[in-house]
Amino acid sequence: MRLALLLFLAPAVALAEAPTVARRLIDAALADHHAFATVASLSDHVGQRLAGSPGAEAGVAWALAAMRSTGLENVHAEPVTFERWVRGAESAAIVAPSQIPLHPTALGGSVGTPHAGTTAEVVEVDSLAALRALGDRVKGKIVFFDHEMARTRDFTGYADAVPLRGHGAVEAARLGAVAAIIRSVGTGAYQLPHTGNTHYDPAVAKIPFAAITTEDAGLIHRLLSSGTPVRIHLQLGCHPGGTARSANVVGELRGTAKPDELVLIGAHLDSWDLGTGAIDDAAGVSIVLETARLFKRFGLPRRTVRVVLFMNEENGLSGAHAYAAEHAGEDPDVVAALEADSGAGAPTGFDIAGGAPSLAMVRELVAPLAPRLPTALRATDEAGADLLPLQAAGVPVLAVAQDMSGYFDWHHTAADTVDKVNPTELAEVVAAFATVTWGLADAPGRLPPPVKPPHW
Amino acid sequence: MRLALLLFLAPAVALAEAPTVARRLIDAALADHHAFATVASLSDHVGQRLAGSPGAEAGVAWALAAMRSTGLENVHAEPVTFERWVRGAESAAIVAPSQIPLHPTALGGSVGTPHAGTTAEVVEVDSLAALRALGDRVKGKIVFFDHEMARTRDFTGYADAVPLRGHGAVEAARLGAVAAIIRSVGTGAYQLPHTGNTHYDPAVAKIPFAAITTEDAGLIHRLLSSGTPVRIHLQLGCHPGGTARSANVVGELRGTAKPDELVLIGAHLDSWDLGTGAIDDAAGVSIVLETARLFKRFGLPRRTVRVVLFMNEENGLSGAHAYAAEHAGEDPDVVAALEADSGAGAPTGFDIAGGAPSLAMVRELVAPLAPRLPTALRATDEAGADLLPLQAAGVPVLAVAQDMSGYFDWHHTAADTVDKVNPTELAEVVAAFATVTWGLADAPGRLPPPVKPPHW
Repeated sequence: MRLALLLFLAPAVALAEAPTVARRLIDAALADHHAFATVASLSDHVGQRLAGSPGAEAGVAWALAAMRSTGLENVHAEPVTFERWVRGAESAAIVAPSQIPLHPTALGGSVGTPHAGTTAEVVEVDSLAALRALGDRVKGKIVFFDHEMARTRDFTGYADAVPLRGHGAVEAARLGAVAAIIRSVGTGAYQLPHTGNTHYDPAVAKIPFAAITTEDAGLIHRLLSSGTPVRIHLQLGCHPGGTARSANVVGELRGTAKPDELVLIGAHLDSWDLGTGAIDDAAGVSIVLETARLFKRFGLPRRTVRVVLFMNEENGLSGAHAYAAEHAGEDPDVVAALEADSGAGAPTGFDIAGGAPSLAMVRELVAPLAPRLPTALRATDEAGADLLPLQAAGVPVLAVAQDMSGYFDWHHTAADTVDKVNPTELAEVVAAFATVTWGLADAPGRLPPPVKPPHW
Repeated sequence: MRLALLLFLAPAVALAEAPTVARRLIDAALADHHAFATVASLSDHVGQRLAGSPGAEAGVAWALAAMRSTGLENVHAEPVTFERWVRGAESAAIVAPSQIPLHPTALGGSVGTPHAGTTAEVVEVDSLAALRALGDRVKGKIVFFDHEMARTRDFTGYADAVPLRGHGAVEAARLGAVAAIIRSVGTGAYQLPHTGNTHYDPAVAKIPFAAITTEDAGLIHRLLSSGTPVRIHLQLGCHPGGTARSANVVGELRGTAKPDELVLIGAHLDSWDLGTGAIDDAAGVSIVLETARLFKRFGLPRRTVRVVLFMNEENGLSGAHAYAAEHAGEDPDVVAALEADSGAGAPTGFDIAGGAPSLAMVRELVAPLAPRLPTALRATDEAGADLLPLQAAGVPVLAVAQDMSGYFDWHHTAADTVDKVNPTELAEVVAAFATVTWGLADAPGRLPPPVKPPHW
């Protein structure tokens, strides 16, 4: 009985002092806009960071310097290799019934059109099922995927729309389409095409695949609905660019009591090339760096905190795979991994890829955030693209949930720029992220492994 | 006494039957979305209509057909000649401190850069006064005009910002600048540059002048504010394109009692080239054509109603000048002129370039609109760009005032497209416009001339 009581009390004592550190982390996070300054530094001074581009390499240099100036130890780059993809020039226009320019952008990984472009009549579908139902009528056409993404507070609307972007080209090509276009997977109507990764099947012909804007999609839809056949000319200069070598950037804060156990906090350093990657994912980079900075200031937790800035999350998860392969032996020592890749919107709680015991533990950790910040917890299947390989290896993964109502207005567009970040909301995310990270890194107990592997 | 009484009663009797027609016009205007269908027809099927382009000529053909199918009489094109301006390719980038692409668009009338572009350090000012204060420090630089336009319900915010766009290049060139860029005269931050007309002074060197986006402006401003010198490379392919011949498109509904007196209702047929000119000014085109269609349906007024769709309002008011010159002899017979060129936002009242007697007369005419639609009247200095020459000649001019809170998000951009038009709000504008037009065309009395000439 005495022993059992002691075992029960030990964590209680540890938790009794936790709120003090958490309180200081929260107050400090909300006291200034330091995280926002980090976003501005990376986005404004480095700009776009498409994996394989000079911008991405400038991003790696920026990250090494930023980690060192934050006081991280063992700061280093870890090699990541991947097949480079180069965008090139791109244009499109309706050529019948009249000449009206469109606003396309190639999807990441797409093949280009012939140099002179591809011209064909358009056939519109709103789903892969509708496409298959067309059968032979797709042959020689440009398939137009016209699904309106719903604006939701979380990833729901995106998750519903994105399979068309991922698999549209393959399914259209199976039926003999010469190219495909898609209503941008995004919200809003600002004449902004949204890029994003797409996939091919080695057994199926690769056809060019581009996003067009909400306005372009509406125009084509209205013309077709009025019974007017629409012909489109599409010219995409995108092409493979050979093998590229870049890096994940890694740094650590050594734990005071259990330095061999670690909490991984990550974000991705690369971005798409159209904007300056402020909400996706300089915001996440700033959240994890700011968390480390606050730990340096208010005391280090018992376990090691490892900061990982992943390369090429956007166009193939190359950095995530490289990291997981390189560090596979450490998986049992990783007590938790958190990714910040949901923009800069206000925190709404935490997503945990785990069961009831995981939620119960995180519920204790978020207690210091209440009532000032939301502490809603949600059991999810996944918690961050870069963490998928770790989750598959049994590492407990979680993510701060954020208000994403406006995120998909700018996501993967030229307007993903610093002005889309609200400094106060970003500071609130830091407060939540730092509190839970500190808790996971300092608590006597640890999260159980994910209840199931990721879907990927 | 008896005579005086009769004179007093005559208008009262006429007005007593007016509400009946007005009521039918209002109900019919609000009953369907026919005006919206007109906007979609012009914007979606013809597209951009930059004066001097094939699109503008397609617009002239569209307008002739639309007037004929509306049942207008004496439908014809009246020649308008002007110096064509051609946009060409355009690009810009920050080249120091790092390479970050910008999103420029040449202002209408701007000269181009040398073929290889112009590269120079940027100097930022927020006003012409601040520019002049810099004196010699402007020499060899690219001047960046950085004034944030206020979002207002009427033209106020625009009127405050637009002089920089009109005169910035001249004033910068006087001080030896090599080029100029301006934060887009517009609201919103959607990575959309807003074009618009600019002017030169024959006595001052012509330098290239481009608008950049709100995001670009914020980026340059933040870099400069942090003490970082910024160099920009600007490449504009715009150039004069020789003398162009196009047309105003004119049609009439002959008055039943006084056919030689007329009310002119106008809008402009041309648009900028970046979008499809839906709010600017297919909306106006639809408002005046729908007004004519409703008159055909519910009975013609005593005076003639002339519909004029002006060419090249945007880049020089060429059609307005041509019309005024061609029709100068008729000015005394024009009892009023109304232009619809404020987008498709809900009506808020009427703007009248006149004094108290003018307002009193219009107050009677708008009575049937109350309480369903706003009837606020405002005495203004001007009432529509295309009406300036007529106002100068003493023609009473007025305009339906509309809610423009969102108008300048899209004005002169690639996102001026059909989806920005709310069909119900547009129908409300038609109701207001048709009611007042019918009143002016049918009332026994007529508006006094404008109290002063326009400012231009």
